Amino acid sequence: MEFTLEDISEAEVARRRDLYAPLADTVRDLIDAVIRTEVGDDAIDDARRRIAAVVDDLRAEQIDGPYGVRYTREYTGMPWGNAVIGLRNAIAPPIRTERVPEGVRASFTLGAAYEGPGGHVHGGVCAMILDHVLGEGASSDDVPCYTGTITMRYLRPTPLGELTAASWITEREGRKKIVRGTLSDAAGVTVEADGIFIVPKSWDGPMPRKSRD
Amino acid sequence: MEFTLEDISEAEVARRRDLYAPLADTVRDLIDAVIRTEVGDDAIDDARRRIAAVVDDLRAEQIDGPYGVRYTREYTGMPWGNAVIGLRNAIAPPIRTERVPEGVRASFTLGAAYEGPGGHVHGGVCAMILDHVLGEGASSDDVPCYTGTITMRYLRPTPLGELTAASWITEREGRKKIVRGTLSDAAGVTVEADGIFIVPKSWDGPMPRKSRD
Repeated sequence: MEFTLEDISEAEVARRRDLYAPLADTVRDLIDAVIRTEVGDDAIDDARRRIAAVVDDLRAEQIDGPYGVRYTREYTGMPWGNAVIGLRNAIAPPIRTERVPEGVRASFTLGAAYEGPGGHVHGGVCAMILDHVLGEGASSDDVPCYTGTITMRYLRPTPLGELTAASWITEREGRKKIVRGTLSDAAGVTVEADGIFIVPKSWDGPMPRKSRD
Repeated sequence: MEFTLEDISEAEVARRRDLYAPLADTVRDLIDAVIRTEVGDDAIDDARRRIAAVVDDLRAEQIDGPYGVRYTREYTGMPWGNAVIGLRNAIAPPIRTERVPEGVRASFTLGAAYEGPGGHVHGGVCAMILDHVLGEGASSDDVPCYTGTITMRYLRPTPLGELTAASWITEREGRKKIVRGTLSDAAGVTVEADGIFIVPKSWDGPMPRKSRD
């Protein structure tokens, strides 16, 4: 997998985080408002025109293609375009995992933009988040790996609102790691996941650790 | 699962589709621009303020909570808030499945907002889309069902760009349906999926068919 070097200081990383995170958060708010608004037709057209004008201004200078996965010389991760954790990506909730003794965990809130069945999280969104959190859990021993297979068991519908995801390595055999994970609401587990993760043959030393934001 | 009746004519559904789809498409464009822009700090701050003002205007009148799953009296589906297919939901690519003799298929393009590894689709996004497309394939016999388990096998990284997803029922036994699916680029399959879908015990007749948009 490709990484891009961002040859900038830690202070500059922090400055950019403070600049872009509020912009993406405002776009997250916009996504929700576009789903839920009941203003009249003229107001909808007006909103569309104003957003299109902002798009034009932002596109006046832009990178070619996607953001990529960026690291500084100090191995500070800047996965800011990532669909699940990217701070510049308004599609991402964004999830922020933390290391815990047994693996990783993340708490987050999912609103209207993540709906599938009425009032509930789309099963595909549950799968998306568990795929990511299992990947982070699989790497929590600092040995890099990629996803081989992953199985989701849907125990009951996951309500929109405050949720927790967690994952941990249960077994290692050769280049395989077996990883488990859960998605839970306040009443308990809603979706269970099992994954088989593979350590690349080429791995022979340390790699950049995944960043949490 | 809950459904909401939208007591409106087919002409009114079409009118609202033409009103909201361009707005959400413009927000999709904005999400991409926010990831890729390189304009200066003042321009970023200006963009954030202008978007926040649009949010305020759209929120002047809005529904409480999420959009829900809506149908007209003619069973025309309006899953417009859905995270994968919702035409009012800028997080959704949106996917539009079509019925084919063997099940369902969908062609779509994923850009910067769906990135995981550099230049490639996030594995969780692959899982999200396959979960949805398998669900549509599972219901392609018009017998409703919900997802029990689903397994993804990642054969190789999925490049960003033009992709196709497909799914079909391979087997039925009692209240279970076994469903397979694939995600593919021009060179072939990148992710395979298998799912077990369950027909609810309460099912004893026709249900609203899932809408394609």
